[in-house]
Amino acid sequence: MRKITFGVSNSLDNYVARADDAIDWLMPSPEAAAVLADYWKSIDTILMGRKTYDVALRRDKGEAVRSFGMQTYVFSRTLKPGEQGNVTIVSSDAVDFVRALRGREGKDICLVSGGELARALFEAGLIDEIRVNIHPLLLGSGIPLFHPMTGQIKLELLESRQFPNGCVLVRYGLKR
Amino acid sequence: MRKITFGVSNSLDNYVARADDAIDWLMPSPEAAAVLADYWKSIDTILMGRKTYDVALRRDKGEAVRSFGMQTYVFSRTLKPGEQGNVTIVSSDAVDFVRALRGREGKDICLVSGGELARALFEAGLIDEIRVNIHPLLLGSGIPLFHPMTGQIKLELLESRQFPNGCVLVRYGLKR
Repeated sequence: MRKITFGVSNSLDNYVARADDAIDWLMPSPEAAAVLADYWKSIDTILMGRKTYDVALRRDKGEAVRSFGMQTYVFSRTLKPGEQGNVTIVSSDAVDFVRALRGREGKDICLVSGGELARALFEAGLIDEIRVNIHPLLLGSGIPLFHPMTGQIKLELLESRQFPNGCVLVRYGLKR
Repeated sequence: MRKITFGVSNSLDNYVARADDAIDWLMPSPEAAAVLADYWKSIDTILMGRKTYDVALRRDKGEAVRSFGMQTYVFSRTLKPGEQGNVTIVSSDAVDFVRALRGREGKDICLVSGGELARALFEAGLIDEIRVNIHPLLLGSGIPLFHPMTGQIKLELLESRQFPNGCVLVRYGLKR
């Protein structure tokens, strides 16, 4: 079974973006890039919600998403389903789709969106690991990373790593 | 000037308690207790909001709060101001009160409540340090630790420490 990781950056007060979707506050670092590059060797597929994709399109017309070079599934009830390069718009039920995807051959899978898509996949028990790069910042307002869920989920800390720029990467497995 | 620390435990999804105020999910450990005992030597005053105090009263009639043996200020617009043992109910403006308190002689001060009191003190620039003991758990719903604020606050990571039970203590200074 392919492992599905929820991989995101947030502020200490649980925001993944400013209210206007801006992520100008993200702090890239060589250390985080090295960890990410290493992790990316283990995956071949990216999952994202439509809102995250919209932000990517506005930022650079989706250039970064395309340049990942990985099969990217964007879940949307409003966009027209179809493929464009490595990006596939999926309008069918995300949980069913991801469950089937997980059973197919392939490397591991990374979910890069919070919000409703993450909630649905968490509640369906389809997330195996969480990686959060906690940034040293209180944004004060914005788009929350974790949305309310119907139940609690226990985690097992796999690793915490402090970067020189003040970010702390925490990595958890999900207890079933 | 006395240092004011915001010291709390939260879940990875930024809740400080369940919706019914329950904190049954907190994971005590000898390691966290040792860090706390060490920290408590540096303080002589505790600040809390009325809701946190209510929870303490319901839990053990406030026994734990009294047994801290520290001067404890509870900020409330509804409770009758006055003293009972080491607990003082304050009905005047929290920001003015804490600003004056900070200028007086004494050891450092710990704010143990999130919510509105924390927001007011953060926005007034009265918090010097944040200590959050991040628990390995998604509560899914509950009382948020950090409430929305009008602006962002940059932090400086001072320390991150991983405990054997999976909690991660992060400690930040506030950049002015």
